[in-house]
Amino acid sequence: MNTTPLAPAILVLGPPLVFKAYETEFSKKFNFLKPWKTSIPLRQFISTHSATVKAIFCSAVSPVTAEIIRSLPELRFVLASSTGVNHIDLRECKRRGIVVANAGSTFSEDVADMAVGLLIDVVKRISAGNRLVKARVWPREGGYPLTHKLGGKRVGIVGLGTIGHHIATRLKAMGCIISYTSTTMKPHVTYPFYPRMHQLAANSDILIISCALTEQTHHMIDREVMLVLGKEGVIVNIARGAIIKEKELVECLVKGEIGGAGLDVFEHEPNFPEELFELDNVVLTPHHGAVTEEACRDLYDHICKNLDAFLSNKPLECEVIDM
Amino acid sequence: MNTTPLAPAILVLGPPLVFKAYETEFSKKFNFLKPWKTSIPLRQFISTHSATVKAIFCSAVSPVTAEIIRSLPELRFVLASSTGVNHIDLRECKRRGIVVANAGSTFSEDVADMAVGLLIDVVKRISAGNRLVKARVWPREGGYPLTHKLGGKRVGIVGLGTIGHHIATRLKAMGCIISYTSTTMKPHVTYPFYPRMHQLAANSDILIISCALTEQTHHMIDREVMLVLGKEGVIVNIARGAIIKEKELVECLVKGEIGGAGLDVFEHEPNFPEELFELDNVVLTPHHGAVTEEACRDLYDHICKNLDAFLSNKPLECEVIDM
Repeated sequence: MNTTPLAPAILVLGPPLVFKAYETEFSKKFNFLKPWKTSIPLRQFISTHSATVKAIFCSAVSPVTAEIIRSLPELRFVLASSTGVNHIDLRECKRRGIVVANAGSTFSEDVADMAVGLLIDVVKRISAGNRLVKARVWPREGGYPLTHKLGGKRVGIVGLGTIGHHIATRLKAMGCIISYTSTTMKPHVTYPFYPRMHQLAANSDILIISCALTEQTHHMIDREVMLVLGKEGVIVNIARGAIIKEKELVECLVKGEIGGAGLDVFEHEPNFPEELFELDNVVLTPHHGAVTEEACRDLYDHICKNLDAFLSNKPLECEVIDM
Repeated sequence: MNTTPLAPAILVLGPPLVFKAYETEFSKKFNFLKPWKTSIPLRQFISTHSATVKAIFCSAVSPVTAEIIRSLPELRFVLASSTGVNHIDLRECKRRGIVVANAGSTFSEDVADMAVGLLIDVVKRISAGNRLVKARVWPREGGYPLTHKLGGKRVGIVGLGTIGHHIATRLKAMGCIISYTSTTMKPHVTYPFYPRMHQLAANSDILIISCALTEQTHHMIDREVMLVLGKEGVIVNIARGAIIKEKELVECLVKGEIGGAGLDVFEHEPNFPEELFELDNVVLTPHHGAVTEEACRDLYDHICKNLDAFLSNKPLECEVIDM
């Protein structure tokens, strides 16, 4: 497991799905350390390689904690395979001058498509219909309820970044009325802006969560917001689970205090809120909005380019996280 | 069951879902005959009322046959609660000078949304993910395959009427590349036009069926078209089941000769092709693209206006079928 001083080591945590898909190609180019392939506990694995690890490449669900960062004195770069970097201790990185970068906009359109797909699915009960047909309940019992029109619905986008913009473009084409909240009002954006979450919820039939998970957005969507959204309201989350107080979301859905939800992310992944399994107005997908073959290919290129740039002291091509 | 000569009778066949939803309101306005509420066989029911029936109001799946038409000498108007009128014997109506009208564009946007929802669902495996999560297969076994990007995909629209146009607008906003086939090339439309189905299939990754079912389009999508579309190809049908040779579609899906399908309509409704029930790349919904609460409300208005117009000899507000 010794590495030569000529090939700086990159610690892979997760591993990210793109790493599994392109492991052979990746391994030809870089000196990757793969702790999951050994029986050594992670802490000990890291300590063994502490002198050589110059970079970390991590999945969306592998914590890069202050402890890990502190045990790697040569660490200069953390590259996430995801858009969100909430699993990385940004404070510790900042203190140490470690550069943090993400997948940029590689997935943005795919995730936006997922948001739209989840929304149509919930509103028009596609998964529910599919289940009823395949379970032979339909047409034996019939009784499929009327669904809802998307055109004319007021959609509040929570976080108008690249993904939020793509969602807005798609839903505008379907006749939805878009407004948004964000940390600041975006220049050159004509959609109405609500500075506060409650205002957005009060003026929306549908909320789509597409912001980063930060200390400010953690548990931002709580029961109070949901009650303001109302009994017919639908929530779609393709960002991070913990932006919603999941316990309160479950309660509101079970009690019928909101109308439905489409969720690709969860507060305690890979655990799902089992109370929702019986609800046909709730569609749950296993955090897979981003993982298309095409995005994986793009991500592979993105990762290679930026690790190459880092290792040869050239400017990174990815968006560096502003900490 | 006798009707007064002052209130011309309207025979309801089906009944259409909108009739069930608004039966009280409808019955206050019109003299509706409801054969499903009696134990009398339909033929006998019709013969009993043959002297008074001036109009028929029918669902999408209630045949208005030449036999029914011939047994109603006073019939002047057939109004469908659907967009498609393939269940009405148009030849016999034409011969008799009976006006046939449909739901117009009441449902167009809803059906277009359904097409987009089914497409995203198949391509991004939303119903499949939902099933795996709720059946607790995920994360226990994981193994969710990579899905596909919609942006950049070539979508061939079969029939660029109002619904087809709405589908095109939506998918263009998602970065798809649109082309179409139709009985004639549409003026003022910039999407590439392929006069022949095979050409469209050869130049598409996805086919969306949104044309009327006619003698010309019956079984137009056969195994040959599907093989041209190819192993990764996806077919979405929100029009009428019999436009596709369902038996050959089932065969192609089971053998993996095409990539997947999203189907809201079937050749032998209310029967579904059971061979597809085990396939996660096939999403089946029970012909419910159109039935939103909002469209039902609009349809109720549309039906009332046009029955009123017919009964008072005023111009119809709906699109009359050109026979």
